[in-house]
Amino acid sequence: MPHINLPEGYPGIRSLFMYSPVTALPLNNLVQTLLHDKETSTLTPGERELIATYTSSLNECKYCATTHGAIAKYQLNGNQALVKNVVDDFESADISAKMKALLKIAAKVQKSGKAVTAADIELAKEEGATDKEIHDAVLIAAAFCMFNRYVDGLATWAPDDASVYDAIGKQRATEGYMTKPFIVNQNP
Amino acid sequence: MPHINLPEGYPGIRSLFMYSPVTALPLNNLVQTLLHDKETSTLTPGERELIATYTSSLNECKYCATTHGAIAKYQLNGNQALVKNVVDDFESADISAKMKALLKIAAKVQKSGKAVTAADIELAKEEGATDKEIHDAVLIAAAFCMFNRYVDGLATWAPDDASVYDAIGKQRATEGYMTKPFIVNQNP
Repeated sequence: MPHINLPEGYPGIRSLFMYSPVTALPLNNLVQTLLHDKETSTLTPGERELIATYTSSLNECKYCATTHGAIAKYQLNGNQALVKNVVDDFESADISAKMKALLKIAAKVQKSGKAVTAADIELAKEEGATDKEIHDAVLIAAAFCMFNRYVDGLATWAPDDASVYDAIGKQRATEGYMTKPFIVNQNP
Repeated sequence: MPHINLPEGYPGIRSLFMYSPVTALPLNNLVQTLLHDKETSTLTPGERELIATYTSSLNECKYCATTHGAIAKYQLNGNQALVKNVVDDFESADISAKMKALLKIAAKVQKSGKAVTAADIELAKEEGATDKEIHDAVLIAAAFCMFNRYVDGLATWAPDDASVYDAIGKQRATEGYMTKPFIVNQNP
C-alpha cells in the first residue's frame, strides 16, 4: 500500500504524476529530453533506455526496471533477450564496447557520483564515447537514482501483470513521455 | 579537473547547465517548483532548502551542500548557525518536530527508496506532516540524489572560496532558479 493517499488504478510513477501535476511536468520534460528525443543525444533511444533500465535494476526498483525494460525492448526491435542480457550481465551482451563502458559508468553513478574514476572515463573515451555521450550516460543514471527513489520511497503500486508493463512500454516507445498516463485499472 | 570538457569559469552544476542547455531547462524548472515557488508546497522555501542541503551533505557533494546551505541561510533570515546545526545533528536543531521527521525520511531516501518504512511515515504524520509534505520531502531528497550524482559524477569544479557560495545563495534565494548562471571567474 502506498505511504500516502494516491489516486487508485495508476501504477508506479503514474500515480505520482496524477497526485502532483506541478512536478509531473518538469519530470516528464526531463525524461523526454534524456531518453526519447532523437536530436538531444547521439546515443539511440534504445541505448538510453538500456542505461535507464540497468540503473533501475541496480536500485531494485521493480516498476521502473520493468517499465523501461519494456520501452527498451520496443526501441530495440522487440529484442527482449538483449534487454535481459544487459540487466543480468552486460559484459556478455551483444552491445558495443562503448555501451559497456557507459554502463560501467552508470553502475558507479548508482553508488555515488564520487565513485566515477578518471580510468572509467578514459575507458569510455577509448571505446569511442564522446564527452556528450559520457555526460548523457551520467545524467541518465543520476536521474534514475531520483525516479527510483521517488517511486519506491512512497511505496507506489508495482503490478505483477507483465502485460501492464508491455502496454506502457509500447506506448512510451511510440508516443514518448509527454502524453497522458495509461489507465490500467480503476480497482487494482 | 572535470571528466569532460566543460566551459571554464562556472562552478558545479552551472558548468553543466552551460554545457547542456537542453537538459538545464527541465532541471531548473524542477528545482524552481520543488524549492522556490511558494504556491507549490506548504513547506517554506527555507524548510525545503534545508532538506536539499541535508541530503547533499549525506551524499558528500560539496558544491550542492554548500550552495543550498547558503540559499537556506538567506531563506531563513540569515541564520547560518541553524543551517549548520541541521547538517551536523538535526535532532538538536531548533526546527519543528515535523521537520525532524521529514529529515529522517530524507536520510532514508538518500540510502534507497526502499529504506523508507511505514513507521517513518507514521512518525511524520503524528508530528503533523500532510501527505503532500511527505511527498515533497521524498521528491526533494530523491532529486538531490540526482543533482549530487550529476555534479560529482562529472567531477565539476567546487570552489574553495566561501564568498562564491554566498553570492550564489543570495542570488537564488531572491531570484529563484530560472535566471542565468552567475559568472564567477573566467580563469579559475
